[in-house]
Amino acid sequence: MSAEFVQTKTVDTLPTEFVRLLSDIPEIRFSTGEAICLQHGSDESSLAGMPPHGVAFVKTLDQIVAVVKLCYEFKIPVIPYGAGTSLEGQLQAIHGGVCIDMSEMNQIVQIRQDDMDVTIQPGVTRKQLNNALHGTGLFFPIDPGADASIGGMAATRASGTNAVRYGTMRENVLNLVVVLADGRVIRTAGRARKSSAGYDLTRLFVGSGGTLGIIAELTVKLHPLPEAVSSAVCAFPTMEAATRTVIEAIQMGIPLARVELVDTLSIKAINAYSKTTLPESPALFFEFHGSDTAVAEQAELVQELASNNGGHNFEWARRPEDRSRLWQARHDAYFAALSLRPGMRAVTTDVVVPISSLGKCIDETIADFEELGLVAPILGHVGDGNFHAIILVDPNSDDETERAQEASSRLVKRALAMDGSCTGEHGIGLTKQKYMNLEFGEDTVDLMASIKMAIDPHNLMNPGKIFTLK
Amino acid sequence: MSAEFVQTKTVDTLPTEFVRLLSDIPEIRFSTGEAICLQHGSDESSLAGMPPHGVAFVKTLDQIVAVVKLCYEFKIPVIPYGAGTSLEGQLQAIHGGVCIDMSEMNQIVQIRQDDMDVTIQPGVTRKQLNNALHGTGLFFPIDPGADASIGGMAATRASGTNAVRYGTMRENVLNLVVVLADGRVIRTAGRARKSSAGYDLTRLFVGSGGTLGIIAELTVKLHPLPEAVSSAVCAFPTMEAATRTVIEAIQMGIPLARVELVDTLSIKAINAYSKTTLPESPALFFEFHGSDTAVAEQAELVQELASNNGGHNFEWARRPEDRSRLWQARHDAYFAALSLRPGMRAVTTDVVVPISSLGKCIDETIADFEELGLVAPILGHVGDGNFHAIILVDPNSDDETERAQEASSRLVKRALAMDGSCTGEHGIGLTKQKYMNLEFGEDTVDLMASIKMAIDPHNLMNPGKIFTLK
Repeated sequence: MSAEFVQTKTVDTLPTEFVRLLSDIPEIRFSTGEAICLQHGSDESSLAGMPPHGVAFVKTLDQIVAVVKLCYEFKIPVIPYGAGTSLEGQLQAIHGGVCIDMSEMNQIVQIRQDDMDVTIQPGVTRKQLNNALHGTGLFFPIDPGADASIGGMAATRASGTNAVRYGTMRENVLNLVVVLADGRVIRTAGRARKSSAGYDLTRLFVGSGGTLGIIAELTVKLHPLPEAVSSAVCAFPTMEAATRTVIEAIQMGIPLARVELVDTLSIKAINAYSKTTLPESPALFFEFHGSDTAVAEQAELVQELASNNGGHNFEWARRPEDRSRLWQARHDAYFAALSLRPGMRAVTTDVVVPISSLGKCIDETIADFEELGLVAPILGHVGDGNFHAIILVDPNSDDETERAQEASSRLVKRALAMDGSCTGEHGIGLTKQKYMNLEFGEDTVDLMASIKMAIDPHNLMNPGKIFTLK
Repeated sequence: MSAEFVQTKTVDTLPTEFVRLLSDIPEIRFSTGEAICLQHGSDESSLAGMPPHGVAFVKTLDQIVAVVKLCYEFKIPVIPYGAGTSLEGQLQAIHGGVCIDMSEMNQIVQIRQDDMDVTIQPGVTRKQLNNALHGTGLFFPIDPGADASIGGMAATRASGTNAVRYGTMRENVLNLVVVLADGRVIRTAGRARKSSAGYDLTRLFVGSGGTLGIIAELTVKLHPLPEAVSSAVCAFPTMEAATRTVIEAIQMGIPLARVELVDTLSIKAINAYSKTTLPESPALFFEFHGSDTAVAEQAELVQELASNNGGHNFEWARRPEDRSRLWQARHDAYFAALSLRPGMRAVTTDVVVPISSLGKCIDETIADFEELGLVAPILGHVGDGNFHAIILVDPNSDDETERAQEASSRLVKRALAMDGSCTGEHGIGLTKQKYMNLEFGEDTVDLMASIKMAIDPHNLMNPGKIFTLK
């Protein structure tokens, strides 16, 4: 890592003058209460919370700018906070400083039906947005599971179950308004669907995890609600047969809206948890979006492909109540997984590989878990080659924690050897920094660091995340 | 623009020692011949050529690295050259230096059918790639018209007629191998379809026009060849009725593969050039990709929408020879346009706006052309809101040249006022730098410049393109 970088000093306490000036910002709410700080220095990972020294609750762009300018003047780190649903330690205030809570900055600025886009403040959550879109015939598809803030989803380059059809935040952000470390406000692009003008700053800030600036407004793409939806579920003799079916479906151009893979252990967990009698083998859950004829045709084609690959117990449904019944098992999968070992800590992994390697990657990972004596059901967004293992760890067993770490580490290395990535949708945050050089090579990481230094020369924006500048 | 930047000195001549060392690179071909240099300092714009001092023809990554390292040592500008089809002066050697010709670096490294991707050298052209894909059931859809090199297309963030369905180079590049100014070689990403790891360097280099580094290898997405294709053409009473039909089709989720708009003047030109009798009004040309039933259904739905908007003379076809006949008018449009005023210079504009503003933008532009006494038929990739006017200018008339410039300038300002972009697919190059601040704001352009300075501190990579660093 480049040596000329100004090393980030950890702030021990906020200067009195700083606190006075911050509290004087019109209509701002600033708290240094212990509980509020601890809550804002924690996310949904299993990491211990590292509280900031204070939390500024903002409602306007001007307030963000005022806070950031003060932090710049006093060289205080700034950490933006959306809904607190990150999974890799993105919110931990490892150098102290001020957290800016965006949750009250949650206005929907403008819905444009004809252009199929919407401008929102960063604290708007995906469910809030979809409620606001009711009656427009449009929806915002990205669904990471949690009801995350869309600003946070952009910062994390989040995706979810339907990225195979609708893309990730990378494909769905049209432009961002960003507050830079020195308080300057930039807009990365207009609203055109494509452009060849200048550097793609939108994509640079999407996925930057608050390390390059604070997202203060977003314009995102919307998509037409499908006329019809159909669902299907199918059991497979092997992981390879299941992934082969997905590869063939994609190669045929079948526009799968969702395709979720569930491993045998998950199915066993579901059968126990939901009192079902699903065949105990890997299964795929499909969703198709389109016209009435299209979704019927898609389901038929997929059934044929599945059957050629040894798929069995294929069921498909078009009526909402039947679709819900088919997908119930998938919806129950996470809690069913937890119930395999009640009271254990769930450590969720998140790798992604080219789809041809997915079956092998999962099979080898399952073998690893068995060898290491770990209970870890697997769920996958198989259309993207992305999957999660939910490793159930006894928090009181250091040995088991170590074995879980070993399994995670082997999994990441396996995914990288297959030309994949150490994170499909959760981000690097704190936890995955150790894999950055392995994934990209040192020169590439250095290049990222030099961009960080050019944009945030005092390393004030969420310092210590993605990489540690030394 | 930041003042601390090392000002680029224009190279007057290549140092003898530099030429000796360059010529010693194993198996390199280096030419300083006047004709070769002039050809490599020109593109398909109407700008005067500005030749580099020499052209290095490379065949390997090692040769690129050797040339770039020498240029770094001697502080000589480097300009990469693909197929020479850029349109905005991207290849003009305005500071002199060395052009690296990539056209012999045209190997297809690996086709991966299951992953639907391919790794190629940058000199591979899109037609060459699609020929190589014959028999795989896959194709590379991006079609900017010219048989451009795919490295050049990535550098320009190119697109074309089917971006509405398949995206632009922004969406279709999985990773790049890039040679940086100092000769370091980086790879921007693996081959996973999505990732939340680190900054999105792939998208930063896509569209950077050779100003951040030299693309030495690309992995791009492939798409399944559609099972069936159908085409349609329809005349409309007004531009607004035509664009309204497209908006409604997209809102219905009809996956238009291509939708091209041709204005009344173009239709008149086509009728004269191709001896056709098309109704003299704006027309849309559609292409649908999908299953047999899907493409039939899509054409029917579009016909209904068109008809509700006053569309008439709707024709659609599925057999290849009938489809060709329907689209012949669109294929003839460019040469028909030129034939409106034989011997004139064609100045092609390239703006993009949010689709709701497209009809108004085109109508106002046509009014401008009439007011300024210019002949300028219009063709549009209407699904993206992107259109081109082909302004036919008498090269001997300064007055007409000025009026054409005035019309272009008004068009860009109109597009920007509508929250669009000054270039949809041709890039900034030299010609559109004057609009950068207007499009992005000075602080955003400054940020781009600071990234350029961080990555290429001596401003050696295609200097003077996209922006002029002072």
